[in-house]
Amino acid sequence: MRLITPEQLDDIALGAAVLGTGGGGDPYIGKLMAQEAIRRKGPVTLLDPDELDDDALVIPSAMMGAPTVMLEKAPRGTEIVTAFQAIQTYLGRTATATMSAEAGGLNSTTPFVVAAELGIPLVDADMMGRAYPELQMVTPTMYGISASPIAVADEKGNSAIFTTINNHWTEVFARTITVDMGCSAMIASYAMSGKQVKDTCVLRTITKIEEIGQTIREAHRQHIDPIEAVRAITSGFVIWRGKISDVARRTETGFARGDTSIAGTGKYSGKTLKLSFQNEFLLAATEDETVACTPDLITVLDAETGEPITTESLRYGFRVAVLGIPCDPRWRTPAGMELVGPNYFGYQTEYVPIEEKHS
Amino acid sequence: MRLITPEQLDDIALGAAVLGTGGGGDPYIGKLMAQEAIRRKGPVTLLDPDELDDDALVIPSAMMGAPTVMLEKAPRGTEIVTAFQAIQTYLGRTATATMSAEAGGLNSTTPFVVAAELGIPLVDADMMGRAYPELQMVTPTMYGISASPIAVADEKGNSAIFTTINNHWTEVFARTITVDMGCSAMIASYAMSGKQVKDTCVLRTITKIEEIGQTIREAHRQHIDPIEAVRAITSGFVIWRGKISDVARRTETGFARGDTSIAGTGKYSGKTLKLSFQNEFLLAATEDETVACTPDLITVLDAETGEPITTESLRYGFRVAVLGIPCDPRWRTPAGMELVGPNYFGYQTEYVPIEEKHS
Repeated sequence: MRLITPEQLDDIALGAAVLGTGGGGDPYIGKLMAQEAIRRKGPVTLLDPDELDDDALVIPSAMMGAPTVMLEKAPRGTEIVTAFQAIQTYLGRTATATMSAEAGGLNSTTPFVVAAELGIPLVDADMMGRAYPELQMVTPTMYGISASPIAVADEKGNSAIFTTINNHWTEVFARTITVDMGCSAMIASYAMSGKQVKDTCVLRTITKIEEIGQTIREAHRQHIDPIEAVRAITSGFVIWRGKISDVARRTETGFARGDTSIAGTGKYSGKTLKLSFQNEFLLAATEDETVACTPDLITVLDAETGEPITTESLRYGFRVAVLGIPCDPRWRTPAGMELVGPNYFGYQTEYVPIEEKHS
Repeated sequence: MRLITPEQLDDIALGAAVLGTGGGGDPYIGKLMAQEAIRRKGPVTLLDPDELDDDALVIPSAMMGAPTVMLEKAPRGTEIVTAFQAIQTYLGRTATATMSAEAGGLNSTTPFVVAAELGIPLVDADMMGRAYPELQMVTPTMYGISASPIAVADEKGNSAIFTTINNHWTEVFARTITVDMGCSAMIASYAMSGKQVKDTCVLRTITKIEEIGQTIREAHRQHIDPIEAVRAITSGFVIWRGKISDVARRTETGFARGDTSIAGTGKYSGKTLKLSFQNEFLLAATEDETVACTPDLITVLDAETGEPITTESLRYGFRVAVLGIPCDPRWRTPAGMELVGPNYFGYQTEYVPIEEKHS
């Protein structure tokens, strides 16, 4: 158990953008909301999973929708609490703690708003160890834990609770209502016992992203290579270096989809890497071969500063390094591949673990 | 207080199709569901509004969506109970009684399923005195009673509860989810106290539609003119007689929209009446003038049998009589006209009470 202050959230948000693999929303907005709530209400207690009672009630909270919309329509901050309270009312129980659904971007930090506003701790864990675009794409799904009931709330004061027969319908309904609500909304879902958190989630990822953020900050201060520093702390691999030569994006059915091309430099000269994203970067391929793909993490860093670049911030001419980072091993099981493998996203490529390609 | 048996439901459904003004869904399906539930569980108690305690909890239930879809996708019967129970769970209270949202078509009889299945009475009242296509188009809206919270359930076992800032958003969300659920769903909404029912609803409309049904049945048996009999019992006016010469319909955004033309016969010869519908018949006009329009009731009867014809049953060649029936006087207030006047539905015509045109 330790306290998280507004200053530590700078590192957490920075590291979250690395594991966010370009998606999960702009961590800057989530950070500002969380910092404002903490300044007003006091620091948030970060609870190690081992400190969680088996019968505790943990309710993760998150933003749903297209990050490109989130940039235009900043959340009011109350809707994430509205969703959380709606699910508590529905369950007739008060949550022991909240948790981040994703270790990526906005959704790593928005639950700090709930924790601060309601004076409850946040569990040092998430449900992905990264970021993913759909609701059912979480490790608890592999253990049969239901997203239902789920609460969805907008910034106007509207909220919805869905009770569904499976996570497919939860995704369909929550996505449709998110579009009605203006393409972004706050959700509370996957209410779990403390034991279920310990058994099914990716543990201590808040501490991990804080360390990644610290690493980038320290690299600046000490003038060491930030790319190598991030690679080392994430146990990742540098899979490309180059200059962004093209970006094509579209917002459809609530998602930010697109591709970006990176003209290689140095040892990658003369070749172009194409990165495909659906909120998150999911596939990195040259004309010849797949370089990295989901469920491994693909993250784009500014070549100079080591700072992660989200899909909505991609611009022509940026000089970048691309990292491939091994995912939580459970994503590599048949159940995991069915949820988030390249075929699920419509890519005709076979998954090869990143360390087998680049070690 | 009196008991409703499967036999009485035949008359209720028949009369409901008259006040249903062509919409509200096929009363035949609702009747079969209700009769089956009553045969299995016993008769339903019909409660006069005067017998209702002021602090009773009344929760109306209804079908939402396009009646044309309802014909193809018959309800399983359990989803109307699912929606009702979801709202009870959400409110943390057990309902004293249920009520029909509309005196029209399917929705006059579906609440009998809830009443029979749950062993609770049904109040002899509704929220329109007719049928209308949108959720907020009920007399309680004029008194500031909220549709929220609303439960929506499908036949697969999914359900949703929406809590909204106004009835506009309730309509938007419930309509969207209804489309997701396959274009028809069951709802429970407008939870009210007994006093609110007595003050804001249209009272004793179940008894009224039963009498209309009896009238049509008796006219058959006694070989008297059924059109004149229905006109008399409803205090209506015969506004047209003729033969259906054209029908154009489309199902869009969850509604059954269209027009039908009726070539006049007898005193109407040489002219054509155009009837426009959005689930219900809303406007009757010749080339020269508006003959009748919402909020007054426009209902199409088979010229031979006096049986009402729903919009989905309209066919070329049918010989029909068209009745105009005065609406509940509250619909004629400025608040009522704003909710359901011709302008709301996009018709550029001024409302003139039916009795002023045809007396």
